[in-house]
Amino acid sequence: MTELKNDLFLRACLSEDVERTPVWMMRQAGRYLAEYRATRAKAGGFLNLCRSPELCSEVALQPVDILAADAAILFSDILVVPEAMGMTLTFGAGEGPKFSDPITCRADVEKLPVLDDPTKELGYVMNAVRTIRRDLGGRVPLIGFAGSPWTLATYMVEGGGSKTFSKVKAMMYNEPETMHLLLEKLADSVAAYLNGQIAHGAQAIQIFDTWGGILNTSSYKEFSLAYMQRIVQQLTRENDGRRVPVILYSKGGMGWLEATADTGCDVIGLDWTIDIDEAKARVGDRVALQGNMDPSMLYANPQRIRAEVKDILAKFGHGNGHVFNLGHGITPDVSPEHAIEFFKAVREESVIYHR
Amino acid sequence: MTELKNDLFLRACLSEDVERTPVWMMRQAGRYLAEYRATRAKAGGFLNLCRSPELCSEVALQPVDILAADAAILFSDILVVPEAMGMTLTFGAGEGPKFSDPITCRADVEKLPVLDDPTKELGYVMNAVRTIRRDLGGRVPLIGFAGSPWTLATYMVEGGGSKTFSKVKAMMYNEPETMHLLLEKLADSVAAYLNGQIAHGAQAIQIFDTWGGILNTSSYKEFSLAYMQRIVQQLTRENDGRRVPVILYSKGGMGWLEATADTGCDVIGLDWTIDIDEAKARVGDRVALQGNMDPSMLYANPQRIRAEVKDILAKFGHGNGHVFNLGHGITPDVSPEHAIEFFKAVREESVIYHR
Repeated sequence: MTELKNDLFLRACLSEDVERTPVWMMRQAGRYLAEYRATRAKAGGFLNLCRSPELCSEVALQPVDILAADAAILFSDILVVPEAMGMTLTFGAGEGPKFSDPITCRADVEKLPVLDDPTKELGYVMNAVRTIRRDLGGRVPLIGFAGSPWTLATYMVEGGGSKTFSKVKAMMYNEPETMHLLLEKLADSVAAYLNGQIAHGAQAIQIFDTWGGILNTSSYKEFSLAYMQRIVQQLTRENDGRRVPVILYSKGGMGWLEATADTGCDVIGLDWTIDIDEAKARVGDRVALQGNMDPSMLYANPQRIRAEVKDILAKFGHGNGHVFNLGHGITPDVSPEHAIEFFKAVREESVIYHR
Repeated sequence: MTELKNDLFLRACLSEDVERTPVWMMRQAGRYLAEYRATRAKAGGFLNLCRSPELCSEVALQPVDILAADAAILFSDILVVPEAMGMTLTFGAGEGPKFSDPITCRADVEKLPVLDDPTKELGYVMNAVRTIRRDLGGRVPLIGFAGSPWTLATYMVEGGGSKTFSKVKAMMYNEPETMHLLLEKLADSVAAYLNGQIAHGAQAIQIFDTWGGILNTSSYKEFSLAYMQRIVQQLTRENDGRRVPVILYSKGGMGWLEATADTGCDVIGLDWTIDIDEAKARVGDRVALQGNMDPSMLYANPQRIRAEVKDILAKFGHGNGHVFNLGHGITPDVSPEHAIEFFKAVREESVIYHR
């Protein structure tokens, strides 16, 4: 076990003292980097990249080298879980993910297995976790991740992305018991998968609930939040003798922060539509906060980006429990120079809040 | 001037006493109705339909006949305003709207005219308003509408729909003065356009801020809400001796209800992500509320739809100031039977709250 040289991210997740605010970025290993595009071309496509532990490690470390990110994140896709449960996943060129055999009825749900041995079905991800940990050599912590059960269910029932989510919502409203069975199987599979990531070296966990925000309040609590909580309750919360923090991120879920803070998570990931001071006032010191610059701010010039960083830092103010991030993933057409300036601004401007 | 036989909608917008909760539905004149599809085919496309006052009236009255809607809404498109300002608008088959000459710089904004005579540039819409009023014969009130300046600006700068809104956000963040000039011109044009609709017979106004919800709090207030307020302040608020209520609807804007209530609008349109009792507690009796069933609930069976209607009515409870609606437009693949059952459920189940 290598000593962790920069543990700012882990300390901030647990609301401990830090010398400055740590920063990483969703999709920091991504298409905006020429280095990433080169590795993906070498792999021969996105899913091949996900299946090569050495190349996953290469792209996971790029933002640590280029941006000096305070955390690395596992390189993978949330949909490898339903794929490991037997569904057929493809990514067409320039298209989103597709399942050729979507879930349409209770019988489809009943025949889905629950994953219990992640080293078997998802061994390549576990290898990636180990390889990234090895290659990081203790520079920064490694975040593992998975999709929320609800978010995975949307893709499995719709057969891919959707604008209206009509199929998954029809199932939820008309056959709630079928939807609950699907979400139970997904929650228990995801919990086993994340515990595998922790066992193989992940030092923090983020659950991405990309589509929780399309629900109304009661449906969000019943069909999305409850199953994230079911995962949180099953997770092994220790690695190398340190607590493994859990971050819940529901895009569009800013109306439900109080309920999210009650799940047992350590950190809530904010999208950019809420002021971080308002979020802090609402959740108090129950959880740390991650976020929350508008990803589109990276299209602005470096002066404007720095002004925004200063504004968000000032809104959070003094006190512990802030991990700086975007409110959603960085988009592919952003200039890497702007991302570099963003990270630099956070490092420089946050020091005064931690004296 | 024909006497208005059913004025429940107008009374509810002004928080006056009603015998039951009125109901209409965003996009109620739309593709889910075979009758609408037949009229559109007869017109030879969507924009031709918008330009024919007689056919606009035909589709605007269909939901009054078929669903017994408590209000009709003008049939048009929000993008006819930038088109009237000189931009080239097309709707390809199965595609969204496109502007072939998007706004890219300050010079583009400077050469845009402000509309001041809606009978000239948008005379066909004024004809549609008059024709629908005539054909309604006082059965229910007619709602006029326009897009919010920010929402119009997104299409004008992006050249159509967008996932990331990178161009319009880059302009907003890098050239705020250019964006403000564009939004001023749009606000004043929209105000003149809506005053034209009121002069020709519109009895209520809704402003659709479809894309306000992609902004952060300070940008929402500065670039979207302020320009809706600028419109509200310019509107003629009387028609046929009655007050013309104004409804503001910002999809994804549920975090900013208090600020929206301060604009001088009469009604806030809610999306479905907030519980209506929470919204009511937050805005008090300053404004009425419109909404807010999840449009996807219409994929559920009639029993489930009725249960949801009862739940929303119970959440709003006794008291005035509720117009029932969906939280967003009805989607094209919904069965008309389900929409009919939805309207029927509101009419039947709401009576007990108004004794």
